[in-house]
Amino acid sequence: MNGYFVSFEGPEGAGKTTMIGKLESFLRERSFDVMVTREPGGVRIAEAIRALILNREYTEMDGRTEALLYAAARRQHLLEKIVPALEAGRIVLCDRFVDSSLAYQGFARGLGIEDVWKINEFAIDGYMPSLTVYFDIDPQTGLERIRKNREREVNRLDLESLSFHDKVREGYRELAKRFADRIIVIDAGRPLDVVFAETAAVVLSRLKGRSKCDFHESGRDDSRWT
Amino acid sequence: MNGYFVSFEGPEGAGKTTMIGKLESFLRERSFDVMVTREPGGVRIAEAIRALILNREYTEMDGRTEALLYAAARRQHLLEKIVPALEAGRIVLCDRFVDSSLAYQGFARGLGIEDVWKINEFAIDGYMPSLTVYFDIDPQTGLERIRKNREREVNRLDLESLSFHDKVREGYRELAKRFADRIIVIDAGRPLDVVFAETAAVVLSRLKGRSKCDFHESGRDDSRWT
Repeated sequence: MNGYFVSFEGPEGAGKTTMIGKLESFLRERSFDVMVTREPGGVRIAEAIRALILNREYTEMDGRTEALLYAAARRQHLLEKIVPALEAGRIVLCDRFVDSSLAYQGFARGLGIEDVWKINEFAIDGYMPSLTVYFDIDPQTGLERIRKNREREVNRLDLESLSFHDKVREGYRELAKRFADRIIVIDAGRPLDVVFAETAAVVLSRLKGRSKCDFHESGRDDSRWT
Repeated sequence: MNGYFVSFEGPEGAGKTTMIGKLESFLRERSFDVMVTREPGGVRIAEAIRALILNREYTEMDGRTEALLYAAARRQHLLEKIVPALEAGRIVLCDRFVDSSLAYQGFARGLGIEDVWKINEFAIDGYMPSLTVYFDIDPQTGLERIRKNREREVNRLDLESLSFHDKVREGYRELAKRFADRIIVIDAGRPLDVVFAETAAVVLSRLKGRSKCDFHESGRDDSRWT
């Protein structure tokens, strides 16, 4: 029995967290050993790095410094939490992984997908997800969902950043084209039960078809990019 | 008037700090506007990252996490301190820079010079020193100097790590070959006044010969490596 690494991507409001929770139950009911995680995942070094990134006093933090810190936190979370689970044969469902950095910092913030990939390639050292589920949604629709679920007014920042979220979406779509074998695009603008049915079907079919050393081979595959 | 970026490399005990201090005075006497710095250089984000790296409780920190954190701290120190000084036309003397990561983590710790270069290339984004002075010394001789200067017993760690310091030296020598235009090797095993005379002569001659956009061009030159 060997592990299988799935990451989930998409903007806030796409329903990622809900989908991962439902998928966890769905897989457990079918006797799969599942671990759900998200960075920094309770790993103390990754938490400390994350606290540094999110410290609001550090307004002078450069985008490249931030990208390097995200990669450092990712490395430590991967090593301490994801790799041991994979080696124990577990199914790892990770809420966001390297594609978030590529779409948000590489593409939308303009640091360059290739450059952000290089530092993340160093961080992950071959451990790429075998499957990435990208929940694609129109930013305006995602925004409306956030408003409904959180029962708060849409704030100035949400509105001002619509063009930024358009860029993030463009970035994800670019990645989905480049990594067509790894990234599955799911239209998350449809009703949740329809989105979940498709997600569960995709993940289950991949899990049934996985090979002995899936999570290592996908890493190799991705390094062909550079 | 344009700035000039010089970095100094070598093991502990090679006399780096002494040489930089003497060089600072030497250049000031000749009316050069000099700034001496070393990472993290009082830059608060870089200091916070450094504190994280040096936290002795974090024994689980992976070598790649550490290398990414060093690169992040370097980025912020470079942007906040070195770049503004260069843009103001100052001579920047920096005690250790990217070559330390390449020699110690890339070569001696076995992460790979090319891989550690990639994350540092992202961090420095073209700002490489125009000149790097590498003080080459036999690790045993360096160790004896530390013992004399610090008036302490050589501890178990010093002795155990001699083979590590041999590897560091091998790494530096490899770098000096690859970057023969940028890195000057100075035999630091000789008396300090001889070492200083040679250092001062090299730096002064480079300063007199520098071109208008030296510090940018050297960055371009180095990116040819990859």
